[in-house]
Amino acid sequence: MKRNIGFIGLGIMGKPMTLNLIKAGYKLTVYDINQEVINELALSGAAAAASPKEVGANSEIIFTMVPNSEHVKDVVLGENGIVKGAKSGAIIVDMSSITPVASKAIASEAAKSGIEMLDAPVSGGEPKAIDGTLAIMVGGKEEIFESVKPILYCMGKDVTLVGGNGCGTTAKLANQIIVNLNIAAMSEALVLAAKAGIDIDKMYQAIRGGLAGSAVLDAKVPLILERNFVAGGRIDINLKDITNVMETAHEIGVPLPLSSQLLEIMHALKVDGKASQDHGGIVQYYEKLANTEVKRAEV
Amino acid sequence: MKRNIGFIGLGIMGKPMTLNLIKAGYKLTVYDINQEVINELALSGAAAAASPKEVGANSEIIFTMVPNSEHVKDVVLGENGIVKGAKSGAIIVDMSSITPVASKAIASEAAKSGIEMLDAPVSGGEPKAIDGTLAIMVGGKEEIFESVKPILYCMGKDVTLVGGNGCGTTAKLANQIIVNLNIAAMSEALVLAAKAGIDIDKMYQAIRGGLAGSAVLDAKVPLILERNFVAGGRIDINLKDITNVMETAHEIGVPLPLSSQLLEIMHALKVDGKASQDHGGIVQYYEKLANTEVKRAEV
Repeated sequence: MKRNIGFIGLGIMGKPMTLNLIKAGYKLTVYDINQEVINELALSGAAAAASPKEVGANSEIIFTMVPNSEHVKDVVLGENGIVKGAKSGAIIVDMSSITPVASKAIASEAAKSGIEMLDAPVSGGEPKAIDGTLAIMVGGKEEIFESVKPILYCMGKDVTLVGGNGCGTTAKLANQIIVNLNIAAMSEALVLAAKAGIDIDKMYQAIRGGLAGSAVLDAKVPLILERNFVAGGRIDINLKDITNVMETAHEIGVPLPLSSQLLEIMHALKVDGKASQDHGGIVQYYEKLANTEVKRAEV
Repeated sequence: MKRNIGFIGLGIMGKPMTLNLIKAGYKLTVYDINQEVINELALSGAAAAASPKEVGANSEIIFTMVPNSEHVKDVVLGENGIVKGAKSGAIIVDMSSITPVASKAIASEAAKSGIEMLDAPVSGGEPKAIDGTLAIMVGGKEEIFESVKPILYCMGKDVTLVGGNGCGTTAKLANQIIVNLNIAAMSEALVLAAKAGIDIDKMYQAIRGGLAGSAVLDAKVPLILERNFVAGGRIDINLKDITNVMETAHEIGVPLPLSSQLLEIMHALKVDGKASQDHGGIVQYYEKLANTEVKRAEV
């Protein structure tokens, strides 16, 4: 028999992930601070709960997908948190992108009530959440991972256990370092070439098959040439992730000079009113510095 | 009838490129400061010259592949340079990685003797030079490019005109920004994850299919896990390229904060005795900072 599932945090990511679980035939109890989205999911067959505690009371496995460490802590351990309602033996799978220090601390606290946790943040954004093809990086005990793996595969395509508690969230931070620094690297290259008068489209074709090639290049160069900065991956969400990167790096003793400078660049973009744009918009920081624009050559 | 070709600079890259031209049936006249490699290529059927001037006198199209701007200037315009021997109407194709400012100045000087130039730097390193599958980024006049294109395809797979004189060398610099910053980005991610106790191999598998995926990740992560830093693309050669990046960026007014910091990182690696290692060795800068090592998990 399929186990009862809870889902807390029904935003841009959480809502389509929940719908994929319903589609897979699971019985869901859901909660969000926004009552409207609860009502919407109730129409799709989910049971509405009045608090995380109530979700916990009705579920064997509870997924959480909320903005940051403090929200996870509140939803799991707070006055009306999951742990207050869940039975011993329940499993909480936190899919939020938070700090590994918080992941470990919350898991350790939940364990005192006999509740196991996994940190299982995702990569791929809204389109892959809708398609159920997210990459899911998991930290926690192997037997707990194995027991929820089939459910994770309803939401993701690549589901990988990378280590113990906190390792999933660390892998997500590592992923975000690469993605955002690759965007900044591309931006430095594009702005230099553009100001030198190069046809960017031709240069992109010339270099994309070589060692400079990347998913970032293929995803972002066409959008930049169209001046399309609609998110996608919002600058403010990635700014939160890079903030978490630096906090974690300092905590465990890993100096990261380029990520640290990237953080300042992203803060500058926020000051410049671009927080809600796609992180491909990082190029605009450099365009402003160099007083030039990366655009398609006129034909 | 196939035109007579000259080739100057028969090093790690120039030698296999020359051999590919000989294989394609071209009659070659060659020169290098190292007499041994001239003798070696003479055994493969090339005519030996005693100076760039003599190469110029015997060739309709002359390729140059030398370390830096000063060498190109000397080989093209010096006392015994190509221009002193070549007839008006000859074409010089400089495949070295130099600064766009130098490319433009040398081309403009050569033009006074009725000699056309293209800047046509390559990407792909020794293996692709041997296979004749280099990416070649070309700057110069379209009709000159069209006339030498078939010859460039004996050495490369992707041959692209990206703009006027200097645009080939600029595109190469842009390429080098992306490649080396992507390596640094990967290094920051790997060292953070390694010190947090993550299984790097599993994390690599978890993220490589997503937006963090890149040619750099696929080329360098396996080598780093084997602690294999044999070049490949040497740190000192890439240091020269990033030095040229900063010179060019300052010349045309493009502030590049991350590339500038990368330059310092590469200088630190040189001081640390790693100049001749592959640029995948950039990870060691971070390992030293964090006092940790990125290695394969013990089984």
